[in-house]
Amino acid sequence: MSKKPSIPKGTRDFGPKQMVRRNYIFSNIKETFQKFGYLPLETPTMENLSTLTGKYGDEGDQLLFKVLNSGDFLSKRGKTLVGEQELEKGYKHVTPIISEKGLRYDLTVPFARYVVMNRNDISFPFKRYQIQPVWRADRPQRGRYREFYQCDADVVGTKSLICEAEIVLMITEVFGKLGIEDYSIKINNRKILSGITEVIGAKGHETDLCVAIDKLDKIGEDKVLEELTEKGFSDEAIENLRPILHPSGSSKERLARMEEFLTSSETGLKGIEETRKVYDYVAGFGLENAKLEFDMTLARGLNYYTGAIFEVKVNNVSIGSVSGGGRYDDLTGVFGLPDVPGVGFSFGVDRIYDVMEELELFPEQHQDSTKVMICNFDEESERYSLKVLSSLRQANINAEIYPDQAKMKKQMTFANNKEIPFVLMVGSQEMASGKLTLKDMKSGEQEGLSVEELIEKLK
Amino acid sequence: MSKKPSIPKGTRDFGPKQMVRRNYIFSNIKETFQKFGYLPLETPTMENLSTLTGKYGDEGDQLLFKVLNSGDFLSKRGKTLVGEQELEKGYKHVTPIISEKGLRYDLTVPFARYVVMNRNDISFPFKRYQIQPVWRADRPQRGRYREFYQCDADVVGTKSLICEAEIVLMITEVFGKLGIEDYSIKINNRKILSGITEVIGAKGHETDLCVAIDKLDKIGEDKVLEELTEKGFSDEAIENLRPILHPSGSSKERLARMEEFLTSSETGLKGIEETRKVYDYVAGFGLENAKLEFDMTLARGLNYYTGAIFEVKVNNVSIGSVSGGGRYDDLTGVFGLPDVPGVGFSFGVDRIYDVMEELELFPEQHQDSTKVMICNFDEESERYSLKVLSSLRQANINAEIYPDQAKMKKQMTFANNKEIPFVLMVGSQEMASGKLTLKDMKSGEQEGLSVEELIEKLK
Repeated sequence: MSKKPSIPKGTRDFGPKQMVRRNYIFSNIKETFQKFGYLPLETPTMENLSTLTGKYGDEGDQLLFKVLNSGDFLSKRGKTLVGEQELEKGYKHVTPIISEKGLRYDLTVPFARYVVMNRNDISFPFKRYQIQPVWRADRPQRGRYREFYQCDADVVGTKSLICEAEIVLMITEVFGKLGIEDYSIKINNRKILSGITEVIGAKGHETDLCVAIDKLDKIGEDKVLEELTEKGFSDEAIENLRPILHPSGSSKERLARMEEFLTSSETGLKGIEETRKVYDYVAGFGLENAKLEFDMTLARGLNYYTGAIFEVKVNNVSIGSVSGGGRYDDLTGVFGLPDVPGVGFSFGVDRIYDVMEELELFPEQHQDSTKVMICNFDEESERYSLKVLSSLRQANINAEIYPDQAKMKKQMTFANNKEIPFVLMVGSQEMASGKLTLKDMKSGEQEGLSVEELIEKLK
Repeated sequence: MSKKPSIPKGTRDFGPKQMVRRNYIFSNIKETFQKFGYLPLETPTMENLSTLTGKYGDEGDQLLFKVLNSGDFLSKRGKTLVGEQELEKGYKHVTPIISEKGLRYDLTVPFARYVVMNRNDISFPFKRYQIQPVWRADRPQRGRYREFYQCDADVVGTKSLICEAEIVLMITEVFGKLGIEDYSIKINNRKILSGITEVIGAKGHETDLCVAIDKLDKIGEDKVLEELTEKGFSDEAIENLRPILHPSGSSKERLARMEEFLTSSETGLKGIEETRKVYDYVAGFGLENAKLEFDMTLARGLNYYTGAIFEVKVNNVSIGSVSGGGRYDDLTGVFGLPDVPGVGFSFGVDRIYDVMEELELFPEQHQDSTKVMICNFDEESERYSLKVLSSLRQANINAEIYPDQAKMKKQMTFANNKEIPFVLMVGSQEMASGKLTLKDMKSGEQEGLSVEELIEKLK
C-alpha cells in the first residue's frame, strides 16, 4: 500500500482555484465559437493505433501513448502470443501484438476520422469545435506536459475566405473578453511561401523553406540561411531571399512589396489575392481594429497547410505564440475521403492561462465561486440560517453555510482561504432585528441588511 | 493506410446534437454544484498503477486499462527487460515491467489521492465536484461503455448532516431544472443495516446483507434470502428479516417501525437518528416537496459507506437508478491519511440523458445552437449581410452566414439539418427597404424586419 501517492510526471492536478480560472477561459472561448455557428464534438480518448500511426511523422509515432490490450495478452486463446522468437524481432514487432489502442495525440486526426465515418450524416460546411485533452510521451519540461488540453475550431467543406475572416473575428472577440490587449494576429499564406521558392529558384522546396523560416524568431537570420544552404538552396536563392526576411511598414505596404516580388509566380500572386480578400472580409464585418498583421516570414511547422496560416503573439510577455491555425486542402484523404478542404484554428489554453497570470488579467472574483458564507454559531442560528441560505440560492447566488459549529476564527480562516468575498453573521441580535450582519472580507466593513437587501447587494 | 476508420469498441463519438444536449445536462449540474459552494477539480487521465491497484477489488484490477511505458520497453538501458524467463512467469509478472500507468477507473480514488497530496493546502471542509471520463475494460454491451463520464460531488472533513440534506437539495434542483418530475430519492443508513444484522443475530455480516439486499429489485425476495442462507444466515435470522423487506407507509411511519425493530441495537438507533436529522435539515431549508423516501432495503454495493446512503430512481422509465452516493468515515486511509470523513454523490449522466430522451424532456432549441442563418445570394448581398451578422453577434445572438453562394435549396437543407430555427434572406428588395426577410423554419412563416426588430425578436 503506497503511503506517499504521486501522479505520473508531466501530468497535473487542477485544483479549484486553477479550475475556476481555466473554466473562465474555456467558457469565453466556447461562447464565441457558438456565436459563430461552431458546435461541440467529443471523440474517444483511445483511438485505434491504425488511426493514429503514420499521421504525425516518425517522431509523432514514438510519442504516442499505447494502451495494453485488456486480458492476458501472453496467452490469448491458449496460445502464447509473445515468446522468445517475437522478442528477438524486437520492440516494433511485439508492440502491435500487445497493444491496439493509443491515446489521442491531437484533435485534428480524430476529427478527420469522425468526418469520414459520418460523411453521410454531416451537412457540409461542417463547423465543429473540440476542447479535450491530448497526450504525448514527450520529455516533460517547464511548460511542456504529457497531458494538455487543445481547443480547436475547424470548418470543413468550404473554400470560402469568410471562414478565415471569422477566425480573425473570433480571436479578436476571445482576447477582448479576456482582457488581452497587446497582441497581434500574424497572417501569411502558404501560396506566398510557394511563390517565394519559385521566384528565388528553389521551386519544390517549400517544406524546407517553411521549416527553416519557422525558426527565424528562435535562431535568427544567419542560422536560418545556413540551414537553407545545407538543404541545397543556392547562394543566389539565398541572396534573393534575404531582403524579404525583415518585413517592415504596414500590412498593406508589405503586401504591395510582396506582390511585386512575386510577379513571376502565379501561385504566389494567388496567395496575395487570398490574403487581401481576408482583409476585405474582416473590414466588411465592420471590424476596424483587427490586430491583423501580414508577415511573410510566418511559416508554421505543419506541412498540411495550403492557404492562409495564422499565429497569435502576445506582446511584452515571456510566452510568445499562444494560438495558431491555417487552411488545408485535404483533411481526410488519408482516410480515403479526398477533397475535403477547410480551415482550422487552435487556442493554446495553457499558454493563454500563463499570459493572463503574468498580466494579472484574471478577475478577482469569479462567477463560479462562492459569493457568501454564513457562519455557524449555534443550533438556533443554524436553523435560521438555512432559510436565509435557501433564499440566497433561489436568487442564484452561490452561497454556503459552514457546516459545523466551529470556532469563529476557524470559520473566518476557511472563508479567507476559499477567497469568499462576503461572510454573513446571524447571531441573536440579528435574528431579533431581522438585520443580518454582512462582512466584506476585503475591506473588513460590516453592515446590517435584511434578506432582501442582502440579495440585492450580492446579486 | 486504413481506408475504413473505426473507433475502439465500447467507446463513442459525441456529435454536435448529442453534445449540445449533454452540455445542457452538465451545465445545469455544474451551476447547482457551484450554487452550493462546490468547486471544480480535475485530475490526470493517467494515474500511477500503484495508486489504482488494489482499490477496486480483484475484478476492478482486471478492468484497469494499462498504458505501455514509453520508449523501447524491451531494451531499457541496453538490457532486455522482458525475456524468456520473465514470460514464463506469466502475465502478472511481465505487466509491471512494461506498464506503470493506468487510466482513471473512477473519480473517488483520484480525489482521495489529491486530498492526501494536498492536505496542507486544502481548507477543510473541502467541497469539490469533478466531471471527467473514466475507463473500464469491461465487456461492452447496451448501455455499458468502456469510456464514460462520471459527475461527482464530495465534501470531506466534516460529519455535519447538513451536507446530506444539501445533497437532497442539489438533486431536487438539478432534476427540477431538467424537467424530470416523477422520481424518488431513496435514503437509508448503513448503521441501520448494521443494526438489522445485530437484531436478527447476524452481527458482523453487514457486507453479505448489503450485497444480497442490493439485488432485491433484480432477483426478488426469495433469491435474496436463498443467498443469505448460503452465506450462513440462520433460518431464524431470515425469518426475522422477512417482515422488514417490504416497506410500506410514509417515510415517517417506516422510520417509526424500524426504530421499534432496532430497539436493542445502539448502532441501529443511531442510524435512525441520523436519518431523522437529515429529514429535519431538509425541512429546515424550507424544501417542502422533497421526494425523499426512507427505504430500509436500499443497500448500495460499495462497502466503504458508513452512514447515509442515497439512490435516485426515475419512475415509469426503462432505466431505474440514475444517481447515488453516501457517507464514508475514511476516504483517504488507504493513502496513509486516516480519519477524513465525508459524503459524496454521483449523477449518472449517461442514464439521465437516456431518461430525458425517453421522456422527451430536451428543449427543442438549445441556447448553444445557432439561432439564425443568413442566406448567401451574391456578392452584394453577402457584403450587406456581413454587417447584419456582426450586429446580431454583438447582441449575443448565435448567428452564421452560409459561406458560399450556393443554390437556395442547398442552403435551406443545410439550415434544416443543423436545426437552425430561423433563416434570414437579404435580397435586392430587402437591401433597398432595409426590411430583411426572416423565415421561421418550423412554421414556414416569413416577415420583414429591420435589423433592430430582428435583434429584438431573436434575443
